[in-house]
Order: sequence, then C-alpha cells, then structure tokens
Amino acid sequence: MASPGSGFWSFGSEDGSGDPENPGTARAWCQVAQKFTGGIGNKLCALLYGDAEKPAESSGSQPPRATSRKAACSCNQKPCSCPKAEVNYAFLHATDLLPACDGERPTLEFLQEVMDILLQYVVKSFDRSTKVIDFHYPNELLQEYNWELADQPQNLEEILMHCQTTLKYAIKTGHPRYFNQLSTGLDMVGLAADWLTSTANTNMFTYEIAPVFVLLEYVTLKKMREIIGWPGGSGDGIFSPGGAISNMYAMLIARFKMFPEVKEKGMAAVPRLIAFTSEHSHFSLKKGAAALGIGTDSVILIKCDERGKMIPSDLERRILEAKQKGFVPFLVSATAGTTVYGAFDPLLAVADICKKYKIWMHVDAAWGGGLLMSRKHKWKLSGVERANSVTWNPHKMMGVPLQCSALLVREEGLMQSCNQMHASYLFQQDKHYDLSYDTGDKALQCGRHVDVFKLWLMWRAKGTIGFEAHIDKCLELAEYLYNIIKNREGYEMVFDGKPQHTNVCFWYVPPSLRVLDNNEERLSRLSKVAPVIKARMMESGTTMVSYQPLGDKVNFFRMVISNPAATHQDIDFLIEEIERLGQDL
Amino acid sequence: MASPGSGFWSFGSEDGSGDPENPGTARAWCQVAQKFTGGIGNKLCALLYGDAEKPAESSGSQPPRATSRKAACSCNQKPCSCPKAEVNYAFLHATDLLPACDGERPTLEFLQEVMDILLQYVVKSFDRSTKVIDFHYPNELLQEYNWELADQPQNLEEILMHCQTTLKYAIKTGHPRYFNQLSTGLDMVGLAADWLTSTANTNMFTYEIAPVFVLLEYVTLKKMREIIGWPGGSGDGIFSPGGAISNMYAMLIARFKMFPEVKEKGMAAVPRLIAFTSEHSHFSLKKGAAALGIGTDSVILIKCDERGKMIPSDLERRILEAKQKGFVPFLVSATAGTTVYGAFDPLLAVADICKKYKIWMHVDAAWGGGLLMSRKHKWKLSGVERANSVTWNPHKMMGVPLQCSALLVREEGLMQSCNQMHASYLFQQDKHYDLSYDTGDKALQCGRHVDVFKLWLMWRAKGTIGFEAHIDKCLELAEYLYNIIKNREGYEMVFDGKPQHTNVCFWYVPPSLRVLDNNEERLSRLSKVAPVIKARMMESGTTMVSYQPLGDKVNFFRMVISNPAATHQDIDFLIEEIERLGQDL
Repeated sequence: MASPGSGFWSFGSEDGSGDPENPGTARAWCQVAQKFTGGIGNKLCALLYGDAEKPAESSGSQPPRATSRKAACSCNQKPCSCPKAEVNYAFLHATDLLPACDGERPTLEFLQEVMDILLQYVVKSFDRSTKVIDFHYPNELLQEYNWELADQPQNLEEILMHCQTTLKYAIKTGHPRYFNQLSTGLDMVGLAADWLTSTANTNMFTYEIAPVFVLLEYVTLKKMREIIGWPGGSGDGIFSPGGAISNMYAMLIARFKMFPEVKEKGMAAVPRLIAFTSEHSHFSLKKGAAALGIGTDSVILIKCDERGKMIPSDLERRILEAKQKGFVPFLVSATAGTTVYGAFDPLLAVADICKKYKIWMHVDAAWGGGLLMSRKHKWKLSGVERANSVTWNPHKMMGVPLQCSALLVREEGLMQSCNQMHASYLFQQDKHYDLSYDTGDKALQCGRHVDVFKLWLMWRAKGTIGFEAHIDKCLELAEYLYNIIKNREGYEMVFDGKPQHTNVCFWYVPPSLRVLDNNEERLSRLSKVAPVIKARMMESGTTMVSYQPLGDKVNFFRMVISNPAATHQDIDFLIEEIERLGQDL
Repeated sequence: MASPGSGFWSFGSEDGSGDPENPGTARAWCQVAQKFTGGIGNKLCALLYGDAEKPAESSGSQPPRATSRKAACSCNQKPCSCPKAEVNYAFLHATDLLPACDGERPTLEFLQEVMDILLQYVVKSFDRSTKVIDFHYPNELLQEYNWELADQPQNLEEILMHCQTTLKYAIKTGHPRYFNQLSTGLDMVGLAADWLTSTANTNMFTYEIAPVFVLLEYVTLKKMREIIGWPGGSGDGIFSPGGAISNMYAMLIARFKMFPEVKEKGMAAVPRLIAFTSEHSHFSLKKGAAALGIGTDSVILIKCDERGKMIPSDLERRILEAKQKGFVPFLVSATAGTTVYGAFDPLLAVADICKKYKIWMHVDAAWGGGLLMSRKHKWKLSGVERANSVTWNPHKMMGVPLQCSALLVREEGLMQSCNQMHASYLFQQDKHYDLSYDTGDKALQCGRHVDVFKLWLMWRAKGTIGFEAHIDKCLELAEYLYNIIKNREGYEMVFDGKPQHTNVCFWYVPPSLRVLDNNEERLSRLSKVAPVIKARMMESGTTMVSYQPLGDKVNFFRMVISNPAATHQDIDFLIEEIERLGQDL
C-alpha cells in the first residue's frame, strides 16, 4: 500500500502489473473490457469484487479493512488486476476537504468512496445470502469498538472505517426477509431523493430558502387530499416528524377549533375535554393527550370486536356517558390499520356519530393510508372523506424512506391560526414574493426537515399505479401467508378471517405444547415461545418478525409485509425458519 | 444519442472516435492519462466538464439536459473525448431497479448518476462564481414546470432531470456567501454521514433495529452533558426534530417534575402554571405553552437590557408578582444566544433566582450551545451547568446538516416517566438484550429519525478542537464585520459593543436618508431599505442575509456567520453588495 512519504495521491497495483511504464497484461484486459462497457463495468467490479467484504459471509469477528484504498478500476474483470491510483486516506483529514483550498479533488474522491460503501450495502440488502442482522449485544458492541468522542480529529481512513463498521452492524431494513416493523424496504428512487435532500440541506419554513420543496409539499399534500376525497383536494396539511406528532397535531387543532381561547388561556379556560379512540389504537393518542395537558384519563378507549375494529355502539355509549358527566367530547380518533391486527375501524359509522354529536373526526391512517392508492383495497377506508383530519405515513405502507408522515386537515387556515406566533425575524411581512408559501408558522416546529422530496420523486417514478401494484402485492403476500398457516399443524390464528391489511397474527405452537390442555401452564409456556424464537432469529440473523402480547392474548407473532422485495419464497422461508428455531421448545 | 431500438445499454462517443473497433486518438489519450491518475481523473472530468451545466452562468431559462447520459469516462482531459458507454435512462423505470431481477446493474448506474449530479452541486456550492440562488417567483416556478403527480410512471431520465431541476432552483445553503439563517454551510463528513443514515433507513426507537445508532446517541449525549458540566456526563436526553420541539420537551418535563399527576389528570388538576422567558427569546416557548395547554398568556416575557440580555431583577419581580396572584412559576427559560441579537442571558444570576424560588431552569442554547466547544468563548454560557435542561442544536453553530437538535436533561429517568406509555408491541419486556437501550418510550414521537450519526461522525473527524476552530473562526469573522461597519459611513449599529455571538445587527442608511432628521419619515423610509436590498440580493443571487424589525426598531439586517467556508473577503463582498444594491434608495 502507499508508503507514508508518498503523499496523498500515489500509484500502486494489486499484482505488480501496475507499473505505469509497463502496463502488461492487465492493461490489455482493461482495454478489451472497456471496448464493450466503457465506464460501466469498472464500478460494478470495484463495488462488488474489489476490496469489498465477501457478500455471503459477514462474520461478527471480521475487522474492517485497514489501510489505503483503491480508486475504482477501469475494467469489469472479477477480480480485476488493473493498475489503480491509490488515495491514502490515512494522510487526509476533514480539513483537507471543501471548503479547503484545493479541496475539490479529495472531496470528490472521499464522497465517492463513501458512496461505494453505501452501494455495496444497498446491493447486499437485497441479497438473500446475506444476513438481515449481524446481532451483537450492547455490551459487546460497546467493548469491541471505541465509540468515544475525543479532542483530536481522526483521519479520513478511520472515518471510512466507521462508515463500514456502522453498516456492518446495521439491520438491513431493505432485506426481503426483514418483516419486523411497519416500515420496511429500501426504495432506490426514494433513497436517491433522500441523498439529494441531505445535499440540499435546507429547511421547510420559508419559500425563500426552500422554493422547490415548499412547492412540492403543496402539490403533494393537495394530491393526497384529493385521494382522501376532499373536493378539489382543498384543505391544509403538513409533513411532520412521524405519526405520533401528526396525531398530536390533530388533537391540538381539534381542541383549538372548539375552543380557540385555549391558545392564550390554556386548559384552565375550557371544560374537561374527552377524546375517544379504540382499545387497539396507537399509544400516541395517549401520549398526545398527556403532552397537551388533556391527560390520559381523558382518553376513553372504545371496545373493539374480535377483529380489532372499534364498536360504534360502544363509542356512542361512551360519548353520552361523558356528556352526562358534563364533559365535552372533542375528538374521535378512528384507526385505519391498527398497529397489531391491521384492523380498519368502521369509518362511516364513526362519521355518523361524530356528525350527530358535533365532534372532530380524526382518522389515524398512518399504517392503512397506503391502501387508498389501491382500487382493490381502498374500500376499507370508506368514510375517510368525512374526516376532519387524517394521519397518513407514506414511510410505512408506501415504502418511502423514513421519515415521511403527513397530517391532512380538511379546513384550510385552521393550522395557521392554531399555531402561528408571527415571528417577525422569520416570516417578514414585507417580502417580495407571495407569502402564502411561507408555511412555517402553521407548524409546531420552527425548523422543519424536508420530508416531501422522496415521496414526490417516488410518486413521479412509480406513478399512482406503481404504488397500487406495491400495495396489492404486499396484501396478496399476506393472504398467501394466511392461507398457508391457517390450517397448518402447529399454528393458531389470533383472530379468524382473511387479513384486511398485511398484518397476520399467529401463535406458533411447538410440538411439546400441542398435546397440552388449554390451561394456565400451556399459556405460560406459549408466552415464552415467540420471544425465544425471535432471539434465535436475531442471533442467526436470517429473518426478523415482531411479537407482542395484546390484552389477554399472550405473546404472538405479528407478521407485516410492506417491502415490495418480498416474495412467496420469503414467506415460505419465514415459516420454515420459525419451525426450525422453535420445534424444540 | 442512443436510438430507441438499441436497448438499455448502448455504446456511443462524443466525436466519432468511440467506435469500439477503432479507438483512435481518444483512446490513446485515455491510456496516457490513466497511467498517471488511474480511476481518479475520470470522475473529476465527467463531473466538472462532462455534460454538466457550465458552472459560472446558471441562467433561469436554461433547460435541463434531455436525452441519454454518458457513464463517467476514463481520462482526465477537459473536455474529454473518450468512447463512453451510454445508458438510455429513457427506457428504464423504477421497476427496473432493485429489487427487480437483474436490477443490480441499472441500480448501481442510476445511483451513481444521481451521485454525480449531487457531487456537481456540492462543488458548485463552494464556488464563489456561482449564484447563491437562482431566484424565481412561486408562480413562475409553478408555471415553468409540471410538478403534478400522475397515475403513470415517468422514466428514469425524467427522474434524473427532476433531480437536476430541483437543485437548479435550490438555495446553495453551503455557499460561502449565504448568511441568511442560523444554519448554514455544508460539511462534507456530515453530508456523507447523512447519506449513510438515509441508506440505513431505520428508526431510533429500539436497539433491536438501530443498534449502532442507539449506542452513538448514548455516547454523544453523554459527551454533550459532560461539556455542559454535569458531573460525569450523567443525566438524560434525546435528539428531537428541532429546537422548538426540544424547548417544548423541557416545558413538558418541568411541568411533570412539579406535578406528575398532570400526565393522567391534565391541566385541570394543577394550579395555574407560569413560565418566564425574555422578550428576545425564541417564539417556540409560546408555541410550546399553547400546545401544552398552558396558554401563551402564562408565558411572561422578561425585559432585556439594550444588548438583548434578560434583566434578572425584572425576572425576580415577575416571579413574585405571579406568586402573589396565587400562580405557580414552574419554568424559567433563559436564552444562550438569542435569535436576532445573539445575546446570552446572565445564566448565573438566573440560576440563583431559580434556586431561590425552586423553579426549573431551562437554557435554550439552540444557537449558543456551540460556543461550549470553544475555550475562548464558553464563558458566555457560565452557569449552564446549573440548568435542569438545555436545548443545544448542533445543526446551527456546529455546522451539522439539518436536522440535529438535542435536549439534555440533568435528572435521569424523568423523560421516561413523563412520556412512557409502555406500548407492548414495541417495547417488549421479555427481549433477550438489555432493555435500557430501547429509548423510544421516553420520546413524544414513536418513530424517530436518526439524527445522531452525522454529529458523531463529524465529531470523530474534526475532534472537539475542530469544532472549536470552526466556532472561533466564525466569531472572529463577526468581529471583523463589526469593526468594519461600526464607524463606516452609512451604517448604524442596532446595539453598541462587540458581538457576543456571530450576530451583527445594523442598518444600512442610503445616502438620500443620511441628510434627514431622525423623525417618523426617516424611520418609515429606513424600514423599507432592508426589504428592497434583500429582494435585489435574491434577484441577483449574489448573497443572502436576513432582516427583520424588533420591538420599536425598524427593519435592520441581522448578519450571522456559521459557515466555516466564509472568509474576510466574503464579508467585504457582503458590504459592497449591500452598498451596490442600496445606494440609490
């Protein structure tokens, strides 16, 4: 490798043929290869077979590569043996990069090197022969590396190693066998858009500093409102940092709509407010109520049927009960796609009740909103058009990179009145352009991350029909899984019937438990099965799926599918893996 | 360019010499160049001089390039004329990328193409001969392009054009002459880290799905607490989506500490709470109070001295006044680095008062926190170690890409008690690893974006001394500006004395106003000067600086410097530009 005295840019070769005065056979190979592929082969070559980690066997003990790095070669031989320029990053520091004088060249090389590391990771993420996770316990990871922050800088070689190490232990959330969360997959156009967003490094509060992104937010939110069914896509909205905050916004705006004086006077000035949501709803409703000074006791949990859907008659009963106590029902949050069961509350019935009692209807469609893109499945959200506000997270079912969560509000102007504080240093009223595009004052945040571009660019690249195909495919896969296990020995479904979303909830019952009576002891043993299988899955790194208890139901697996990379074979693999890892329990 | 029938991968050349059977002169050039530079030159060549827009003259009317694209060539001639493989992206769609079968090659090429667009933008961002902004009015941008979302997909050629168009109209926030916001600059290591974060595409709630990022958050927050001065770096914290949310967290936790029953019972169960902050503080304190059900009337604004610092005697007076009315003072938010003046409240005096009256002391050091990294300037935050909580945004003065805001809390465990809802589907209690690393339940959010990695990687690359050098340099530049204009004809300082932060606030008084008496008419005309100069700046695209009124002071410029790319010459340029654009007013 480059000797310390040779400066930042040196020249070397893998096999000795790289002497610049005597190129030899390798150069000849290069020329031949270049004839047919030009600059294309070289990247593939360097990326996949250069000094990269071997794809199929990422082992926990393998140290990151250490010394100098080769620039991408100019051939497509695997492995190639062309002469390569070397950059010795051990002699470079952040201070050598832009804005340093002469920083352009090392900057481009360094960023390209990072990019090559990222592209390797991208390719591996989709490779079923790689692990989903190279699991280590926290204390192992803490001991194996020095993560501490120090006074002195590290060189760029060390920085590149940190990038590799970080990705080595990362969960491959785009892997076709990663089923652990509602957000899975890695969309290539979305990823490209997120890189661009990072590079643009700006903030959503004003048109002045984010002209295109502000316009794209306007266009995209309008389109989402059209799809919800609000006439002409009218209304308001914002991209917020996640579904929990979107739901909190809804609660905040609903309260303001009913009692605008709360903004100045606080909760002391208003009667006791009550929110209603189902017992299967997301915990963010309670979090929001706690934060907003409403209190978790004022969130009434409505009973669900056995499929996890809110029971409208129980909702009405509880509304009347609250009113009889002199409390003021101000919000019903129906869920379209519950977190565990994937249930859709009956929105039409809920809308009727909200109308009858003049209560703000919110729909938490963080998980289920994606189904609005599918002509086959959107009926499950019938009635969403009657909502006053909707949470819809494209970073879940639509596969947009994290984070991308929208809150949509039917009444225009309400968000602005609710949240604006007229900060004159940011939202000057005498600017030279149309100030309606300065959207920052309707947010709770001041600075706001640009979350829209990846959704917008994916939408352009896929079209609505592309999202539809993605959604339909994932739901078909869930049905496939359901059909396999519903009658398979050793499986019990948590609820009956075809899944409405991609959630499939089931117990795996190991052979030793199948013979037991359905008593306390069996339940106690069954409750330990999923955690052990999950731990074994993570240790072997082959796949990941979530489990949890719910109400009186002990730990069960909750399978969800949102990654378009998954196939029938991956579903088959999951089942085999659960059985392989759990049959001795 | 490639003909429609030639498939996705075709072969072409710029000058006819690219016939694969007859390479000719260009090939010879390639070989010679390659001898000395290997794979390095080719990227620079393609990036800077290939089919890229000419750097110095980005005009509003220039259309984005249209047809097929060349892969990077293998020489470093400018412009090069080597044979190049062409990828006709007009025939490729998102569905051809991974996870498609055989998607690897088009994916790598597409992502590399995007990367080349981004690298061009990065290089231009630091090039003083390019514009900071290519300004267009909203209706112009809306009319010039079709931004609408449609049913049908677009091809990857169009997607790449959207990337170029988006960046064409983006504000170059890393440009050395962009002074418009508290967050400026584009750090190369931070950018690389943010790309990696996007690629890892995960979520901070559990160790299970973000092992390294969770550990890095732990390490980084601890280090920040050490720097604040809390013994052993003990305490708690979180990276939140911006300073406004961090401040809201502080208010939420302070309230919970005093009245834990508020979580269940809401504000109805507690006496009227009062928060105190200075009249120059950030508007997020009022936003937070409105959201949390405290009400903006319960935020008392304490008077500031002429430098914008909170007056402690007025604070104590207002606390006593509130107590006399039977209200409960629960929070004082002191500001370390106000938004407009860059003032530091007297933290030691505030701490004494908070101790005396047993009030939670919060320090909003979103803007000023960076000065803690400087041995020369950290005295300005003396007393911050006595705070109960601190907001500190590394995305401002430390140049970390947006967004990166930390809330640090002295008492451990309080955030968890305040916010936890024990969602069993996410925070299972029977997992196989140490659950203290599942930090999600202490957040208001459920999903949480990974904001730590860019800060951590920059810190490793720069060292604490690198941040110190950055801070010291920016403060030195501010002093340089102050020294130039304090006695220069046509300038009036908004407040006297050297800037404490990089904020320099001043009026530019055009010649026609210099002769007027200091009366209403002059003030009225002076108030229009900054907006007009700013509009002209944006239209000419040469530089950007913010202006605003404050209290009884009419529109003035607020210069801030947080970009290490800025130099003395850039400050000189700003002054010349203001005078050039404003002398006729």
